[in-house]
Amino acid sequence: MKITLTIVGKTNFDWVTQAVEMYSKRIKKYINFDIKYLPNIKNTKNMTSEVQKNMEGELILSALDAKDYAVLLDERGDNFSSAEFADFINGKITASTKSLVFVIGGAYGFSQNVYKRANSKISLSRMTFSHQSVRLIFAEQLYRAFTIIKGEPYHHE
Amino acid sequence: MKITLTIVGKTNFDWVTQAVEMYSKRIKKYINFDIKYLPNIKNTKNMTSEVQKNMEGELILSALDAKDYAVLLDERGDNFSSAEFADFINGKITASTKSLVFVIGGAYGFSQNVYKRANSKISLSRMTFSHQSVRLIFAEQLYRAFTIIKGEPYHHE
Repeated sequence: MKITLTIVGKTNFDWVTQAVEMYSKRIKKYINFDIKYLPNIKNTKNMTSEVQKNMEGELILSALDAKDYAVLLDERGDNFSSAEFADFINGKITASTKSLVFVIGGAYGFSQNVYKRANSKISLSRMTFSHQSVRLIFAEQLYRAFTIIKGEPYHHE
Repeated sequence: MKITLTIVGKTNFDWVTQAVEMYSKRIKKYINFDIKYLPNIKNTKNMTSEVQKNMEGELILSALDAKDYAVLLDERGDNFSSAEFADFINGKITASTKSLVFVIGGAYGFSQNVYKRANSKISLSRMTFSHQSVRLIFAEQLYRAFTIIKGEPYHHE
């Protein structure tokens, strides 16, 4: 199985980049993993958040392949524990899913068309995180999922 | 009201420091806020996790004042939404609480003595985060709580 993390927009925060890179390296020891950054929409100042969201939605849809199992990171999604999330990943491996794609949207979330295309939705917490923090929180959870699947101790650092 | 975030141990990750500093600056615009770092326990390699946890517990207890309202960030705590967490903070302000202290434990969590002393427990998610990531996740939530209390838009960056 290949796992892709598709992210709308580059980050402005160096700490997000550093954290995501650290966890990405660790994840790649377990599975074929890649991050795909979709370009920021330009000139958003004169746009409503709705228009921006729809334009980002078109980018997300064009980045998805028909065969991808697409999971949105979304506050309306299921609240998994880390163990349940590991079960979810392991279930996709067992079901011979070829391509599992997690999508982190832009500042205003996902358009209706993206919700329609998605196969599943996951929420990382009942709390709302910024779409920047979500990147590193998710990367840590994906790494943690593999330590759980493999029965390895999580680095207690 | 004064809010203190008491943390066991310095971080090894530059990205944690950067993120916590960024959110601290923002929080200080709303309230008297300070971070207190407790020293790492030394020579932990020859210790059981239980001994390390108990030693850290003694440090935490000695850092707390009798009047502090102490809240542990703990996976056994209540799962608040961001709005509920803002209500919790606002409730403490309304109740004229003088000193609200949030405590982030070490790698192995809290000792029984710390649980006994604590006034309350909060969980940031059903998912388990490292005690490093928790620092920045909490800092973001505390900042977000004040934007909610003040009715201000959260920076969508």
